[in-house]
Amino acid sequence: MMDIDRIRRDTPAASRLAYLHNAGAALMPAPVVAAMKEHIDLESEIGGYAAADREARRLVSVYGSVARLLNAAPDEIALMENATVAWQMAFYALPFSKGDRILTAEAEYAANYVAFLQVANRTGVAIDVVPSDASGELDVDALERMIDERVKLIAITWVPTNGGLVNPAAAVGKIARAHGIPYLLDACQAVGQMVVDVEAIGCDMLSGTGRKFLRGPRGTGFLYVGRKMLQRLEPPMIDHFAAPWVSRDAFRLRDDARRFETWENNYAARLGLGAAVDYALDIGIGPIERRCRMLADRLRGGLASIRGIRVRDLGRAPGAIVSFTVEGYEAEAVVSDAAAAGITIGASDPSSTRIDAEIRSLPPVVRASPHYYNTDAEIDRLIAHLAGLTRR
Amino acid sequence: MMDIDRIRRDTPAASRLAYLHNAGAALMPAPVVAAMKEHIDLESEIGGYAAADREARRLVSVYGSVARLLNAAPDEIALMENATVAWQMAFYALPFSKGDRILTAEAEYAANYVAFLQVANRTGVAIDVVPSDASGELDVDALERMIDERVKLIAITWVPTNGGLVNPAAAVGKIARAHGIPYLLDACQAVGQMVVDVEAIGCDMLSGTGRKFLRGPRGTGFLYVGRKMLQRLEPPMIDHFAAPWVSRDAFRLRDDARRFETWENNYAARLGLGAAVDYALDIGIGPIERRCRMLADRLRGGLASIRGIRVRDLGRAPGAIVSFTVEGYEAEAVVSDAAAAGITIGASDPSSTRIDAEIRSLPPVVRASPHYYNTDAEIDRLIAHLAGLTRR
Repeated sequence: MMDIDRIRRDTPAASRLAYLHNAGAALMPAPVVAAMKEHIDLESEIGGYAAADREARRLVSVYGSVARLLNAAPDEIALMENATVAWQMAFYALPFSKGDRILTAEAEYAANYVAFLQVANRTGVAIDVVPSDASGELDVDALERMIDERVKLIAITWVPTNGGLVNPAAAVGKIARAHGIPYLLDACQAVGQMVVDVEAIGCDMLSGTGRKFLRGPRGTGFLYVGRKMLQRLEPPMIDHFAAPWVSRDAFRLRDDARRFETWENNYAARLGLGAAVDYALDIGIGPIERRCRMLADRLRGGLASIRGIRVRDLGRAPGAIVSFTVEGYEAEAVVSDAAAAGITIGASDPSSTRIDAEIRSLPPVVRASPHYYNTDAEIDRLIAHLAGLTRR
Repeated sequence: MMDIDRIRRDTPAASRLAYLHNAGAALMPAPVVAAMKEHIDLESEIGGYAAADREARRLVSVYGSVARLLNAAPDEIALMENATVAWQMAFYALPFSKGDRILTAEAEYAANYVAFLQVANRTGVAIDVVPSDASGELDVDALERMIDERVKLIAITWVPTNGGLVNPAAAVGKIARAHGIPYLLDACQAVGQMVVDVEAIGCDMLSGTGRKFLRGPRGTGFLYVGRKMLQRLEPPMIDHFAAPWVSRDAFRLRDDARRFETWENNYAARLGLGAAVDYALDIGIGPIERRCRMLADRLRGGLASIRGIRVRDLGRAPGAIVSFTVEGYEAEAVVSDAAAAGITIGASDPSSTRIDAEIRSLPPVVRASPHYYNTDAEIDRLIAHLAGLTRR
């Protein structure tokens, strides 16, 4: 049983705010804040290098924590400045030639799509978008039919930024494995919200962020690269940490996933990330996932009963991101109006997920994203607030 | 006149430690620590996105501060995770072909040199090392003689990591401008220690770090790219911040240097960097440079008089990094022995500057790097400590 009272005590702002913006940046629990501030204090007391030396064991254990979160091994983990850089270091390491194909999904995130476009401009690789099925999920049968020997990468976002959709990441992994095609999964909105098991999914590379459902610091992310794939990938850029300078004309790439890192890091932020992962693992990702779904479903149910509100979520079993539009109100107006009432939510612009937004003619949508530390009462407060708005 | 007492009150650890490791990571002054901790608190009170919104003006002003530090314009500055990534984003954006040449210096930093090697492997570009003159500085006449139409980049480290050498950055800039050759300057050890003026230097690209002589946080850095060069450089990797996704098949690169950034950042660290730059500008870089030189010269003078100690610094007017070896002691042993006496210094391994180290047959060297917040008494304490060591 989750101890919600203790969890909320660890999250002081929860007593003032109905914070339902966890798909943007979640509220950090007290141990995360403490881990960062204590390390900054230590750095100011003994210097940045000595502080990192003194905390060396805890810093190494962050790799173990992230590995446990993903069911991976610590040497398959790189800690990065953010999820985008994590994703980029894997994606730009892959070789493409003219005539090759990248398969992606309709709701692929803008950050990834512009990178596809840049590499398409450079190499002539084609970007092919797998259609969605009637439920709005990536159509696994269509994916299977699109596979040929020219497909050199499957890269999708598991949980798109603009709604409840949860793409069938493991079914995609089965197809990728069957055909020996590298599979890069953007798990930014999934980590911390739901069980993530790289073995069960069958992905070769996965990127995640600290600040969203993991409740970690801003400016933290990580990359998983499976051992087999690792040996095939030379990072697009290297320094002497990734690849020590072993003789005048030679470097030697590290054997582990840290070949994607650079030497210098923000250790306070890393310790914050470690504390966030440990906090989530301690509560249990299974219970977190169930509670997220329960709260999001409650919100969807309440919104569905309000005239003038249209829930925009797709998929058979939507996750903790609830997207909707309110008749007569711009999304940003709904967000500021809620903020004035002590309710924190966000908005998602069509340019973040352009292909999906064009197919569905989506305007900017409101995005409310509960987490396990939220309560039924907070969900009901947002529902009542929005019901009031539509009656004005 | 510098108010050393006030400065030392802002640096509480200075009352306990003789901290002479500013070429590694300097002690942060109190306003830097406060800027970071206050922002982390704000994030935990209202969420990471709202906190960045609330501090938007201060966050924008960091670009102005860094620009003032370098005599550049704010739109020529990108804020990065560290100086290595800053340098990489510029270097890997440059196109090279077989037969092209990169000119660099003997004491070039390992991080940069392995990147040269990686790109040489990929493209066939040649890496040509400009010899040093009798003083140990990059030989400007030799550089001039090495220029031909195949030279596509001059990339040097202004102040190498392994000693007092200050390369003639502005003389190199004159040659680069005269021949229209792109010039990338690694200013990691220079920023915060000495006056840095990109116009006077004539560099097109410059990278710097927060944690060293600028006294900023770990995990911060910046890139300067002059406006003319900017328009010629497509970043090696992009996201939707660097290059918004403007239509299904097109992105549009930002016009400013932030095209080298990604969307997500550690804003607490950025505010810490801004506070560090403002703190240095407030004291004045000219006075800082003079005091750094004065303290380093005092140290060199003291060490020169100790039998068994050999100062290893090169150049006509060495800066604030003092490198030396102690007969009969490994560098790391000297460092730990000093640490036990409350004196913080560092060491530099030959693998950090392999070419220079091979030419000079350098073992690991001890590296002591005073800053303006240090005192004559602290310098004398290190000298006395080392004199004691050699007498054991």
